[in-house]
Amino acid sequence: MSQALFENTLNVMRKKVEDKLEQLLPNAEGPEGRLFQAMRYAVFAGGKRFRPFLACESAKLFDVQPDAALRVAAAIECIHTYSLVHDDLPCMDDDDLRRGLPTVHRKFDEATAVLAGDALLTIAFEILADPDTHQDPYIRNELTRRLALAVGGHGMVGGQMIDLLSEGTDVEIGGIIRMQQLKTGALIAYACEAGAVMGHASTEALHALHAYAHDMGLAFQIADDLLDQEGDVETLGKTPGKDANVGKATFVAIMGVEKARNQARMLADQAIQHLDLFDEKADLLREAARFVINRRH
Amino acid sequence: MSQALFENTLNVMRKKVEDKLEQLLPNAEGPEGRLFQAMRYAVFAGGKRFRPFLACESAKLFDVQPDAALRVAAAIECIHTYSLVHDDLPCMDDDDLRRGLPTVHRKFDEATAVLAGDALLTIAFEILADPDTHQDPYIRNELTRRLALAVGGHGMVGGQMIDLLSEGTDVEIGGIIRMQQLKTGALIAYACEAGAVMGHASTEALHALHAYAHDMGLAFQIADDLLDQEGDVETLGKTPGKDANVGKATFVAIMGVEKARNQARMLADQAIQHLDLFDEKADLLREAARFVINRRH
Repeated sequence: MSQALFENTLNVMRKKVEDKLEQLLPNAEGPEGRLFQAMRYAVFAGGKRFRPFLACESAKLFDVQPDAALRVAAAIECIHTYSLVHDDLPCMDDDDLRRGLPTVHRKFDEATAVLAGDALLTIAFEILADPDTHQDPYIRNELTRRLALAVGGHGMVGGQMIDLLSEGTDVEIGGIIRMQQLKTGALIAYACEAGAVMGHASTEALHALHAYAHDMGLAFQIADDLLDQEGDVETLGKTPGKDANVGKATFVAIMGVEKARNQARMLADQAIQHLDLFDEKADLLREAARFVINRRH
Repeated sequence: MSQALFENTLNVMRKKVEDKLEQLLPNAEGPEGRLFQAMRYAVFAGGKRFRPFLACESAKLFDVQPDAALRVAAAIECIHTYSLVHDDLPCMDDDDLRRGLPTVHRKFDEATAVLAGDALLTIAFEILADPDTHQDPYIRNELTRRLALAVGGHGMVGGQMIDLLSEGTDVEIGGIIRMQQLKTGALIAYACEAGAVMGHASTEALHALHAYAHDMGLAFQIADDLLDQEGDVETLGKTPGKDANVGKATFVAIMGVEKARNQARMLADQAIQHLDLFDEKADLLREAARFVINRRH
């Protein structure tokens, strides 16, 4: 499959996820309407919806009802968006642009950005716990429990803390890998596992998807560092070279461009191998691993 | 029961809740340890643990296993603490003191405060979704679902948004009541209802507790406004008169001290009446309604 064809497939899924988000996010009514406006602004500011794509494709492997998978995908995107909104805050990465648009605290204000992030985090749990997501309360609870583990202090938020603390310090490669596994890897892994949880998959299948997500997520992050190093503001939609400028530890800074590129390729190949126990239903997940290292934005 | 005796009872429960929180919160290990330090600093900075008390007492009405109720109580306190940490941020209420101690962003820094709040919000869902909280996944899921509804954009966070937007504007009494119902009432109501959910209570009992929480929560807030107006920094542990100074709409500002005090009394009486269908097991909840309007801090 060509890169263009895959991007097309990704776009079709993106549209479905955005329709679901449109349906699930509250409308900007009442005196608190500004909060909902900010949530929607953040969520609909663009993005590839790559994590939702992973959730839906993983769910397909186990014949999960597509609309249910879309709900979980939407919840995951709410979490991802909340993390971006809070990460962009002046006290964190202090970014003015995100996907080519003013960040939430620039478009609205800091307080609204903090609250919109809080509400997006919360609505993810509301969506998962709703009976529409799965008829079996055990599965709904399992989706909730695993999400909380993936994005809390021992997951995404912990990774963000390490990332902030690592600014201007010498970090070795093991430290960066662990930081990235927490900061971005845990949610990517959750996206890949959620479909398996919904589809009562075997432990073996769950582990395979976890391993796939692990390697693909790391490849994704290295590719991100490479793009950050090489991209321009127009293609990236954000300020390039920013991480390097604030002295953040990146894969590229430690390994150099060439080695980082090779490492990303190797990880993508490894990710694909983890999918060997699945048939052609997993082909788009295989393509996704190739996509992450070849994308231009 | 005297006010002193009730405070003593509250203290006994406080100790139990703090032991449970001690057990459930992560220890400050690893490079992300600062995050866990900040979470613990915020949670163990004091506080009456009034919401956890309500959860445990409501659970007693339905013979819920005390340790399970304590877990839910701890989750509720994590949510309450997260809301305080984010509310204290410079971009929100900009408070330097909370319960007589430096606020989290003063003790640590703003980024850590944002992340500690995020992680406390997330761990609440982790605790609720854990099988130790209840053996029935339907109940665990129901606890999660209701919490998400109570504290998200249509609950606590929405109330905080309205509160911020109301600064310096004319708000009528209906507007303040709705704001307070969202900002503080929804979590108090959740605390009172959680025990009923865990104990498979009748709809009638659930509604009675909701009505109790509604009136008691409003009485609590009016009493808070009165304390804010009349208290001093030593007793309050925070800067008094702050709300009035920034032009926030308060019950006292609109009704005046005397009318506000009467209104609080009337609401507390009404709250107690809602408990008529319960026997003496509800006596401490009755005392709690009296306590909120008589407390000095």
